[in-house]
Amino acid sequence: MLQLSNKYKNMKPSATREILKATSDPSVIAFAGGSPAVEAFPCDEVKKISAEILEENPVSALVYGVSEGYDPLRDTVKTWLKKRNNIGTDDDTVIITAGGTQVMDITTRILTSEGDTIICEEPSFIGSLNAFRSHGCNLVGVPVESDGMNIEALENAVKANPNAKFIYTIPNFQNPSGTTLSWEKRKAVYAIAKKYGIAVLEDDPYGNLRTEGEEVPAIKTLDEDGIVIYAGSFSKILAPGIRVAYAVVPNSIAGAFTIGKQVSDVHTGVLNQMIVYRWFKEYNVDAHIEEIRKIYRKKINLMCEKLDEFCPQIKYVRPQGGLFLWAKLPNNVDMTDYCKRLVERKVAVVPGNAFIVDESKPCNYIRLNFSTPSDENIIDGVRIMGEVLKEY
Amino acid sequence: MLQLSNKYKNMKPSATREILKATSDPSVIAFAGGSPAVEAFPCDEVKKISAEILEENPVSALVYGVSEGYDPLRDTVKTWLKKRNNIGTDDDTVIITAGGTQVMDITTRILTSEGDTIICEEPSFIGSLNAFRSHGCNLVGVPVESDGMNIEALENAVKANPNAKFIYTIPNFQNPSGTTLSWEKRKAVYAIAKKYGIAVLEDDPYGNLRTEGEEVPAIKTLDEDGIVIYAGSFSKILAPGIRVAYAVVPNSIAGAFTIGKQVSDVHTGVLNQMIVYRWFKEYNVDAHIEEIRKIYRKKINLMCEKLDEFCPQIKYVRPQGGLFLWAKLPNNVDMTDYCKRLVERKVAVVPGNAFIVDESKPCNYIRLNFSTPSDENIIDGVRIMGEVLKEY
Repeated sequence: MLQLSNKYKNMKPSATREILKATSDPSVIAFAGGSPAVEAFPCDEVKKISAEILEENPVSALVYGVSEGYDPLRDTVKTWLKKRNNIGTDDDTVIITAGGTQVMDITTRILTSEGDTIICEEPSFIGSLNAFRSHGCNLVGVPVESDGMNIEALENAVKANPNAKFIYTIPNFQNPSGTTLSWEKRKAVYAIAKKYGIAVLEDDPYGNLRTEGEEVPAIKTLDEDGIVIYAGSFSKILAPGIRVAYAVVPNSIAGAFTIGKQVSDVHTGVLNQMIVYRWFKEYNVDAHIEEIRKIYRKKINLMCEKLDEFCPQIKYVRPQGGLFLWAKLPNNVDMTDYCKRLVERKVAVVPGNAFIVDESKPCNYIRLNFSTPSDENIIDGVRIMGEVLKEY
Repeated sequence: MLQLSNKYKNMKPSATREILKATSDPSVIAFAGGSPAVEAFPCDEVKKISAEILEENPVSALVYGVSEGYDPLRDTVKTWLKKRNNIGTDDDTVIITAGGTQVMDITTRILTSEGDTIICEEPSFIGSLNAFRSHGCNLVGVPVESDGMNIEALENAVKANPNAKFIYTIPNFQNPSGTTLSWEKRKAVYAIAKKYGIAVLEDDPYGNLRTEGEEVPAIKTLDEDGIVIYAGSFSKILAPGIRVAYAVVPNSIAGAFTIGKQVSDVHTGVLNQMIVYRWFKEYNVDAHIEEIRKIYRKKINLMCEKLDEFCPQIKYVRPQGGLFLWAKLPNNVDMTDYCKRLVERKVAVVPGNAFIVDESKPCNYIRLNFSTPSDENIIDGVRIMGEVLKEY
């Protein structure tokens, strides 16, 4: 029998993706997923666009592309990001990836060796944590507060780990905590990275899904020193199955990033990239984002309202956007047991310890997704959550 | 400025992909590419199929999928491979990947640590060699003869490298040498892997492009011990831009392989996978393969005929299929200089040293691709090759 590498011996599949598989049963109320709202997908637009592409020049959509991505899409993303978020300068390169996770994977490939350390928020997105772990990196978690990472703990972590190569943050509507890193803290994160000569990996798949409050500029907008890798994605504003995302990387590492992409999968599907390009060309993407924000605003409001009504024992920081709400159970409730009882009642949530660096540590949080379930499911699911809470 | 990891400090982009970028100039005769013949792409079929998918159930093509791949496609590939090539048993799992290179990448992730050794054919496909190098692995090359790897050298290499984790082979119409590993040698490769307790990574993107001679069963058909990972692809029989390939992996490592896929890019594009699935459902894939073989047969014959006519000084083993011909220059011709002079005459070929483990070693081969250029380009390009040869 084959021996696995040390890196993979202790790897476990993503709990959320495993739960997602288990909840393909349509009778289950899925608060466990991480999919954007399907009613927000521009289906008719994608249908029209792909028909046009395959009518006009099918060969161009089916031949090999270059590893950096489809140039018209790269140019479009560059212009759009600059205008919309003031992200990117002449010292940066936009590279297209097959989904956002690939940015985390490639960044880890090019900046770390086995045994190096990555500083991350705790809790944080399990998909990224697993990508880091899969390269043999150690994770050091920094507690997340209602306005993002605790900055003192961050500096201590960086100082205590001279082999730390980058700080990983999801600045907007963080997964799973739903919190947003304040502008003051963003400046502090950048200053610490600069002081200790390490990189910042800024993962921003949810930034366009703000439903209330003021936009906070990206850490990348501070990047005079070429130390921030910014990851954006079309998974949440167009659709995730299409697998198109992008990285904005300092020119100094753009060559290595491109090689990382090349050895991963050569290039992202050309038809996929062309669909996104034409979507920009033929439709108003900013207007679409405004529309889907209305959907998310309604869903967040509904879930918070129902939590307050049916589960007043649960504490949470109200998210200002994104897909997730991080719910703290009362102390008398055993989190794992609660999740099990919910599954018996056909409600799936993600146990909070899935998002902790050391999964064996006690954790009395659960992650709730409000973007996938219908309004009826949100109401029924939270009602059942309240009923089960009363059993303790 | 950010420091790259040791693994990436010395990495160079794939010479062939760089050349491909340079030769986007349509006036260049491109013998340097690795694309299948575009006239073989089933464009009308893909157009019809994607319209159907996006008409009937667009959401299903746009939501997240599972990491292992779209189940109907996995089942279809499993059945088709069993019937067509007797590949796969109940002890194997089919996993969909985003192109064939991803199988090499994930296999390296899960079976090796930095500093481990991979035994490969020499010359071999630069894309795979770079994928191995990018994980910090050492490459040990085994010379390729007209019937594939030298088996004595292979056993010596495995014996001399106790940290070797797998043997990498392209058994059919090898890239770049065009040679096919004989049945006797396939059995010997398997026996050596078994004897020394290491894996075989059998990369077979070209197997369906046989234009003459008898099919040779895959090494995977011998795999009673669960030590062979088989990689197949739709890049050469459908189209490469769609980025759909597959791995047949022993069940014992299927879980780790799935995690490797998950941390790489979560899953392969769903629309892409559905297109391939429907292609099988609605069309006769085996008949399509027979048709494209005719195209390849004609192209190989034409290139060989013109080489014999214009460049009798060049020696080569006539490929029985695939995309490539490995041409040995006469001793009085400096290979690098010859490639440069060809570029000046607007003919692009790949310098042979790109495919050698140690690129600084002398090499008087060039790789010629016959699938991409038109018949006229093959005739003109080989004529120019002959003219430039006369300059020495």
